[in-house]
Amino acid sequence: MSEIYFDNSATTKMSKGARDKMLSVINESYGNPSSLHKKGLDSEHVIKEARDIILNSIGVMRGNKNELIFTSSGTEANNLAIFGTVFAKKRQGGEKILTTRGEHASVEEPLTYLEGLGYRILRVPTEGGKLDLDFIRQNARDVILCTFMHVNNETGATYDLKTAFDIVREQSPNAVFHADCVQSYLKTNLTVKGIGADLLTISAHKVNGAKGVGALYVRPEIIKAKKLVAVTLGGGQESNFRSGTENVYGISAFGEAVKEHTQCLKHELEKMSTVRAYLVDKLSQMNGVSLNLPEAPAPHILNIEVKGIRSETTLHYLSSKGIFVSSGSACSSNANKGHSRALVSFGLKPYQIDSAIRISLSPQNTIQEADMFLDVLAEAIKRLARR
Amino acid sequence: MSEIYFDNSATTKMSKGARDKMLSVINESYGNPSSLHKKGLDSEHVIKEARDIILNSIGVMRGNKNELIFTSSGTEANNLAIFGTVFAKKRQGGEKILTTRGEHASVEEPLTYLEGLGYRILRVPTEGGKLDLDFIRQNARDVILCTFMHVNNETGATYDLKTAFDIVREQSPNAVFHADCVQSYLKTNLTVKGIGADLLTISAHKVNGAKGVGALYVRPEIIKAKKLVAVTLGGGQESNFRSGTENVYGISAFGEAVKEHTQCLKHELEKMSTVRAYLVDKLSQMNGVSLNLPEAPAPHILNIEVKGIRSETTLHYLSSKGIFVSSGSACSSNANKGHSRALVSFGLKPYQIDSAIRISLSPQNTIQEADMFLDVLAEAIKRLARR
Repeated sequence: MSEIYFDNSATTKMSKGARDKMLSVINESYGNPSSLHKKGLDSEHVIKEARDIILNSIGVMRGNKNELIFTSSGTEANNLAIFGTVFAKKRQGGEKILTTRGEHASVEEPLTYLEGLGYRILRVPTEGGKLDLDFIRQNARDVILCTFMHVNNETGATYDLKTAFDIVREQSPNAVFHADCVQSYLKTNLTVKGIGADLLTISAHKVNGAKGVGALYVRPEIIKAKKLVAVTLGGGQESNFRSGTENVYGISAFGEAVKEHTQCLKHELEKMSTVRAYLVDKLSQMNGVSLNLPEAPAPHILNIEVKGIRSETTLHYLSSKGIFVSSGSACSSNANKGHSRALVSFGLKPYQIDSAIRISLSPQNTIQEADMFLDVLAEAIKRLARR
Repeated sequence: MSEIYFDNSATTKMSKGARDKMLSVINESYGNPSSLHKKGLDSEHVIKEARDIILNSIGVMRGNKNELIFTSSGTEANNLAIFGTVFAKKRQGGEKILTTRGEHASVEEPLTYLEGLGYRILRVPTEGGKLDLDFIRQNARDVILCTFMHVNNETGATYDLKTAFDIVREQSPNAVFHADCVQSYLKTNLTVKGIGADLLTISAHKVNGAKGVGALYVRPEIIKAKKLVAVTLGGGQESNFRSGTENVYGISAFGEAVKEHTQCLKHELEKMSTVRAYLVDKLSQMNGVSLNLPEAPAPHILNIEVKGIRSETTLHYLSSKGIFVSSGSACSSNANKGHSRALVSFGLKPYQIDSAIRISLSPQNTIQEADMFLDVLAEAIKRLARR
C-alpha cells in the first residue's frame, strides 16, 4: 500500500541529502567540537558550515557565531527565548508579556509558569486567523517581551508580525521581540528583518532535517544589551547560551536540508500552494466538509471540519488506509488538555473543533496524492457520518 | 595515516550497529511519536524499545515509561536533576546541597547558579580520587540534594557512591540522591540499586550512540513524592518531564549501542582494563612521565603528566601524528576558566595540571595502538621537553 503523508507540520521525513550528509559526518567527523585536536576541529567546522547556511536562509549574511544558538528542538528554543529573556532582567513587578491566544504549548506553558510567578501575560485574540491589532495597541505599554508565532500550526494563519511588533516597539522600545517561526520557516519568505524579530525560533524536523535539533536566532543587539541569559548551564557551548555537547550529526543534516530547500524555495512554495488550492477547491464542493480558512494562509496547512465525525475517527480511518493527517497539533494531541486553544481562538465552536482535521503538506506532496486523499475522505464520510 | 582515537571520554564514534539502526528508523519510522496515526505509533514503539534496553542495562527490569526521561545530553539530564529537584521543593532557607569539588561543569554551573540564589553548596574534597567521607559525615544534615559523579571524567577515579549516599541518607532521609554516571555507564558494572541513586544521568555519545541524546533515570518513589519538576515546558513529552519532539533517531541508536555493549560488557571491561594496565606499566617506566593514578580507577581513563611540556603542546603534537587525546575534559577545555577543578581537587599542583594529558579508551582500542601511542609520546618528549 502506498502511503500518503499529509502530516508535515507534525514532523517530516528526512531528505535523502540530509540523511547522506549526516551519515558522512557520523563516519568522518565524530569528534567532540570542544576537543582541541583535529577530530574536534573537524566537528566544529561541520557546525560552522550548517550555521552559516541557516543564517543565510533567514537573510543574515556573514552572521556571528553567537547569532544562531543550536538547541535540541523548537520547544527548547522557545523556552530559551522566553525564560532567557525574562530571567535576564531584574524584576520590577508588573512586567507585561504579550502573546497570542493560540500559541504552541512550548510558548504557552512557559508563559503560564511565569504567570504563576506573578508576571502579567496578555493574550492577543486571533479570531479568523488575524492578530487583533487594537488589542495590541491598547496593551503595548510596559511590555518586556512580545512572543508571537508567525504561522499558526493548526490553522495555517500567517500573522503580520512586522506590524504587530512595530506597534509594541513604539510604546515599549526596550521590549524583546520573539517570533516562533517553526511553521513558517521555509514555508514563507521569512527573514529576520522582514518580521522585525530579535529572537526567532526554527526547528529542523519540520523541514526534512533530523529530529532533535532546533535553533534560536539572536540579534547581536540583544547580546550586546545582555537581554538574554542561558537556561541550560554547563560547559559553555553555543557561545555560552546552551551547554551540552552539540548534536553534530543532526546539525549537519539540518544545514543540508536547509540548503536543499533554499535552492528551490520559490518552486517549493508554489508547489505546496498549488496542491493546497486544489484541495480547497475540491473540499469546498464536498458534502459534509467545511473549511476553516484564515485570511492569509500559509501554503502548507489546511484545516477542515469533517462534520459529525470525531477527529480521531476520521484520522484512524485514514491511517488504516495509509493516509496520515492530524487532529490538531501532534504536540497537544496527547496532552489531553481540552479543546485546542488555537482553534478556539480562531473562532470555532467546540463541536467544530471535535471534528477538525489538519492536512499539512511538504513540497513532495502531489495532486495525485490529493486526489487519493479526497477519494478516501469521501468514503470515510459516507461510512462514518452520523445520519 | 591510520588514526588512534584515545579521547573516548570526550565522545565516541558511533558503532556500525547503532548507525544502521538509526538509518532504518530514519527511513521507516519518521513519524512524530505524539501523532495518533500509525506513523506516530511506529515512532513511539522505537522509543519504547530503546527505553527498555537502557533501563535493563542499569538493572531496572520492567521499568515504567516515566523511569527514564530522554534528554538531549548528559548536561541537560544533570540540569534537570538539579534544577528539577530544587525547584520541586518549597524554599525554606538554609537548604544544603552536597556535591564534590571536581564535578563536570554541567553539575558545577547549575550549583553555582543556585549558590547565587542563596542555597548552601558544600563541596566534598576528593584528594587522590577518594571522597572525603569524614567531610560528608560532618555535613550530612539538612541536605535536600546530593549530586555526585560516579567516575571522574578527568582522573578516572571511581567514587564509592553507595557508602556516601548511605551516610547522608541516615541524617537527611528526605534528600534526593543524584549520580552523574556519564563516565561510569557501560564502563563499570553500574546499577541503580548498586549505587543507591534516585536520579542517574547517562549519555549516548559516550557509549557509541549518537550525539544529542542523554537520559535521566528517575526512581518511581521520586515521582510519587513529587520531588522532581520539569524545567523545559511545552507539549508534555517524556511523561511531562521534558517537552520537545523526541530525538527518535538518536534514541534508537542509543538503544542499539547499549544492546551491543551489554551483550559483551564483561569482555569489554576486561579489554579496556588490559590496555590501560599495559599503558600504566609502560608509562611508569618512561622518562618524563608521571602518572596521576586514583586508588580505584575506571578501566578506560588514564591521566598522566608529561613533565615540562604544556598539555596543548603534547596534544597538538600527537594530533599531528593522528593520535587524539585530551587535555582535561573537552567540555571545560574551551571554557578557559583556569585550572581543572577535578585535577586541583585530586591534589595536583598547577604546574602538573598544565602538563596533564588524559587518555580515554573504548573497547575497540588495542595494545598495538597503545604501542604506537607510546612511541609517538616518547618522540614528543624528546623533541618538546624543556631541558
